Amino acid sequence: MKFNENLAGLVNYEAGKPIELVVREFGIEAKDVIKLASNENPFGTSPHVVEAIKSAASNAFLYPDDSYFELKEALGAKFGVGTKNIIIGSGSDQIIEFCLHAKANPQSAVLMAGVTFAMYEIYAKQVGAKIYRTRSQEHDLAEFLEIYEAHKDEISVIFLCLPNNPLGECLDTKEVYEFLKRIDEDVLVVLDCAYNEFAKFKDARKGIESSEILKFKNVIYLGTFSKAYGLGGMRVGYGIAKESIISELCKLRAPFNITTLSLKAAIEALKDEEFVTKTLENNLKQMARYEAFAREADIEFIPSYTNFITFKFDKQSASEISQNMLKKGIILRDLKSYKLNAFRITIGQSWQNDRVFEELKQNLK
Amino acid sequence: MKFNENLAGLVNYEAGKPIELVVREFGIEAKDVIKLASNENPFGTSPHVVEAIKSAASNAFLYPDDSYFELKEALGAKFGVGTKNIIIGSGSDQIIEFCLHAKANPQSAVLMAGVTFAMYEIYAKQVGAKIYRTRSQEHDLAEFLEIYEAHKDEISVIFLCLPNNPLGECLDTKEVYEFLKRIDEDVLVVLDCAYNEFAKFKDARKGIESSEILKFKNVIYLGTFSKAYGLGGMRVGYGIAKESIISELCKLRAPFNITTLSLKAAIEALKDEEFVTKTLENNLKQMARYEAFAREADIEFIPSYTNFITFKFDKQSASEISQNMLKKGIILRDLKSYKLNAFRITIGQSWQNDRVFEELKQNLK
Repeated sequence: MKFNENLAGLVNYEAGKPIELVVREFGIEAKDVIKLASNENPFGTSPHVVEAIKSAASNAFLYPDDSYFELKEALGAKFGVGTKNIIIGSGSDQIIEFCLHAKANPQSAVLMAGVTFAMYEIYAKQVGAKIYRTRSQEHDLAEFLEIYEAHKDEISVIFLCLPNNPLGECLDTKEVYEFLKRIDEDVLVVLDCAYNEFAKFKDARKGIESSEILKFKNVIYLGTFSKAYGLGGMRVGYGIAKESIISELCKLRAPFNITTLSLKAAIEALKDEEFVTKTLENNLKQMARYEAFAREADIEFIPSYTNFITFKFDKQSASEISQNMLKKGIILRDLKSYKLNAFRITIGQSWQNDRVFEELKQNLK
Repeated sequence: MKFNENLAGLVNYEAGKPIELVVREFGIEAKDVIKLASNENPFGTSPHVVEAIKSAASNAFLYPDDSYFELKEALGAKFGVGTKNIIIGSGSDQIIEFCLHAKANPQSAVLMAGVTFAMYEIYAKQVGAKIYRTRSQEHDLAEFLEIYEAHKDEISVIFLCLPNNPLGECLDTKEVYEFLKRIDEDVLVVLDCAYNEFAKFKDARKGIESSEILKFKNVIYLGTFSKAYGLGGMRVGYGIAKESIISELCKLRAPFNITTLSLKAAIEALKDEEFVTKTLENNLKQMARYEAFAREADIEFIPSYTNFITFKFDKQSASEISQNMLKKGIILRDLKSYKLNAFRITIGQSWQNDRVFEELKQNLK
């Protein structure tokens, strides 16, 4: 059977390894596995949210209120925007998909950083769009502008990952706003702010404000409940933009794109800012330990504005170290699929990080 | 901002009205609302599954095992197929999307019944494909073949909805297999079996067997946990086909397309066949009451092989009746968006149906 041409060039996203796999492959008990591979919240889910999910569990048979009325009202209040400026996705990933399916096509191109979130390219290829990347791995807006100017007739979508997954760096907000002014209003600029809570907490100059975003006719802010809000497994993300953008993206949203329990969980998660603050505080404190560890062990790292840190290797193989750690029940994220000799470690709780340091030491030469 | 051309022709799917809306608009308490609009399971979710969800609630922060290993093993055992013959979707809806994004394009056409599940057309339009429908509202394979033969060079996907939503009729399996033999191996035939458990229970001649499906190189079977398995709100569906089809569709599946709790719920739901049997038995028994009611009230209906029945009207307005019922807290599904003067009623529990009959009587002239 012949399939659409675009499929020929597609490869699947390589997800972080699940705990179940370590249990299956290495016979380690689930409770002894430390998963720091997928940037989930090391404190789990807020206990209030867990209770809310339990209370709503018997509604699993009911489709959700597809207007997502209550969630949009709550997000609208938090960000100071109207409900018509909000779209809900199955993770912010799905809104990335909507953006590309709405604006990119085989005649257009998509611009992104040299090394950035893999799903941008995957979705862009699904619609047959061309990809431009900056030479630098990290975001460099001068390079973005240079490529943009050279291929203005082609580029229909630009991605800025603020902060950048999987590297960790983050552009200054002021720079970003200046950049946005240079971009034609017909080009959609996606500000992927999945980790922006962490960046803003570390340094206010990295925080993207939705009120500023709504000044632009061609910019969308993406946020998620997967990281700081502790709901990675529930798949809820959101986009904030002018109504003229949101209403078009909504045409691509299938009904019931999040689950009934995800909807409930997200609404409850927004009420527990204390949990988020605890998460952000732990992250900052434990991040300092990783930096100190790396300096002492002479490992190259990128100062991170996220809830993970990426260690780069020169002589040793990062894949080999990751694999050794895996056998000990510690799951890190090998970045081989990003063509890097590096791995990414989610910042865990103190006791988890202790074990990481201990095992890592055994593996460093 | 200009968007891709395909978006111009798109309208959103009109979902069944949620309980929350009736509460908001008519001030009726949620506990007094009877929702028979979206073909959810009137017994809710199996108590065993509800318990499993509660036990897993604290895992909401963890991404699911993206291989869906355990669920695929369980489905494979149930259907007697390999795990590589299975793809998991966010509802079977999402697999409809994958099929169309993989096989349809602006140069191709999609063939379906005169009145059938709205998402086929919506997803087909997303990729700019042309739509052919049979003249008859219900499935008529002679008409399908006639159109297929006349537009063989264009048609890349054919949908058969077995049984058909929102009408309720169901083709005989034997007829379907004969039809499949007449279709070129490069055309993907999608057998949407979301309600097939109900059809098979009523009449064995309507049951589609996955072992038969795997004999064809170009056929995919779609099943769901939303109806007989009582998990509409959890969004889990599956496709079964030759590995050559599944592996291509998997290229379009984003990681973590179902939630951690949905995965758990689906695995547990497969273990409780008793709940499914109870559901099917109630459905058959209560369906007979709806048929008797319709005959007595002289309402036209299509004998249904699903968990709903569609009442067609001639003189009275189905929309008006639906709206009156809504004010009384009973949510039916007006089929105006399908261009029918009809409404669809999910077969409820006995006490729910009593109330429907009572209120309907007040509205019939």
